[in-house]
Amino acid sequence: MSPAISSAKLADALKASAQAVNVELDRLLPIGDGPERRVHEAMRYASLEGGKRLRPFLVLESAKLFHVAESAALRVACAIEMVHCYSLVHDDLPCMDDDDMRRGRPTCHKQFDEATALLAGDALLTHAFEVLALPGTHGDPAVRCELVAALAHAAGGWGMVGGQMVDLLAAELAMDVAAITRLQQMKTGRLICFAAEAGAVLGKAHPNQRQALRNYAHDLGLAFQIADDLLDVEGTAEEMGKKVGKDADAHKATFVSLLGVERARAQADMLASQAINHLDSFGDTADLLRDVARFVVERRS
Amino acid sequence: MSPAISSAKLADALKASAQAVNVELDRLLPIGDGPERRVHEAMRYASLEGGKRLRPFLVLESAKLFHVAESAALRVACAIEMVHCYSLVHDDLPCMDDDDMRRGRPTCHKQFDEATALLAGDALLTHAFEVLALPGTHGDPAVRCELVAALAHAAGGWGMVGGQMVDLLAAELAMDVAAITRLQQMKTGRLICFAAEAGAVLGKAHPNQRQALRNYAHDLGLAFQIADDLLDVEGTAEEMGKKVGKDADAHKATFVSLLGVERARAQADMLASQAINHLDSFGDTADLLRDVARFVVERRS
Repeated sequence: MSPAISSAKLADALKASAQAVNVELDRLLPIGDGPERRVHEAMRYASLEGGKRLRPFLVLESAKLFHVAESAALRVACAIEMVHCYSLVHDDLPCMDDDDMRRGRPTCHKQFDEATALLAGDALLTHAFEVLALPGTHGDPAVRCELVAALAHAAGGWGMVGGQMVDLLAAELAMDVAAITRLQQMKTGRLICFAAEAGAVLGKAHPNQRQALRNYAHDLGLAFQIADDLLDVEGTAEEMGKKVGKDADAHKATFVSLLGVERARAQADMLASQAINHLDSFGDTADLLRDVARFVVERRS
Repeated sequence: MSPAISSAKLADALKASAQAVNVELDRLLPIGDGPERRVHEAMRYASLEGGKRLRPFLVLESAKLFHVAESAALRVACAIEMVHCYSLVHDDLPCMDDDDMRRGRPTCHKQFDEATALLAGDALLTHAFEVLALPGTHGDPAVRCELVAALAHAAGGWGMVGGQMVDLLAAELAMDVAAITRLQQMKTGRLICFAAEAGAVLGKAHPNQRQALRNYAHDLGLAFQIADDLLDVEGTAEEMGKKVGKDADAHKATFVSLLGVERARAQADMLASQAINHLDSFGDTADLLRDVARFVVERRS
């Protein structure tokens, strides 16, 4: 394996990809002249600027492994980010987590109102599928269909939404590490897996290569979540741009409450290393994917 | 043109198609064993049973014009109905219309809770795209992509969601008949147009035939909406299975408040006749589509 790329190089790459995603999102998102413009503005507020853009980065980097055109990868990256942002908007609503701040700014329903935020989330989710299904995403419609079906499966009742449901019920359930792992796999893991796999789908990669990326993302997603739990305990609201200590306040079982800080951190580090090992067959081109696995467990926000 | 089919024949056909849609929805919708089952049950509560199933009927009947396999048409019919039902669930939420009753039963958030209803709507919308994108819907992935993109366009920020946004703002806007027509076109018209057009997409029909069905559905959708406004004034809650007189209570401009009952009824009848005229090229096979155009303006609920 090649020597690790400095984290400055990763920081530059993350910044560049976040910028490219912003430009493309701005191009893809609707902006009308009639009164419907209000929901278009809320869609933009909720998705443009801010965020680490981890999922888009995984799409762009996995696409590079298979020499996929950047224009195609960017559309898929934006579609996944739209789904991620919709989930945050709905998650922040009063009937869910009731959060006032997100990415250091008022949440969408605080900036607009609840009804507009609900609709903006709905429209972001819907628009993601339109972007994937249109010819600009790939010349082969079979590939576009595969992306649509896989994104829907990752985001729907068996995936992200199912995980959010389990999360809402978690306080009443006896959650052990296995149950929390399953919950996190559904709630965040499936979408992260799809992001890393999307490049392989676009590049019509060999099934083994797809599997390797899925395995990588599986471990990465879990490491990311444990790191998130650690930050909820150890981070400050200023660093995080949102409220911290919420899990403890809600008496929610997390990896940290079940394992303790030290074992949780060791587990996250182990998963990050394991994620990197899954990339062995890809050589130097995957170095930024390796770096990002280290980054997710080392980040301070 | 052939003589009108008796409305008993239409009633039987509507009942048969609603039954077929229920069976297929039951087959397509998720039902898990874990705690996520709660959101699956809410998805089912919100979409199985009840409703006229007008949109699925339009899909199934337009598909018959082009000899499309019923199994394929049923999947598309169910996908559109999932999107329609998700929009009702979100529309009924306290931050939107705040309705307690729907189809004679408690609304989804009354039966479950707000968070579960929000998630059930999200998952129904997401699942619709998965169903369309999978091979069972059509052997040609280009057709499946076209369906996904068209449904998303009809349902998203330029279509249904955009229309709901305008509707929320309508009380503060000076709405004339042109503005109300545009609002209704976005809020309900686009999805009804897509339902009638879907059979032509599945059957790879000639562009003229697609256009004829779009024109038919455009007029049908508007006639349906005017009839709805009339029922809100003239119907009873018992007949409708939901609260009536809401528009007047909300001081909302409607076709009826702007045109008066008589002119609104005349307009609805005129649009229904016009819709029927668009079907001239289809012969007897389109008789049930003609009947349904008469039905939407004559119905009592």
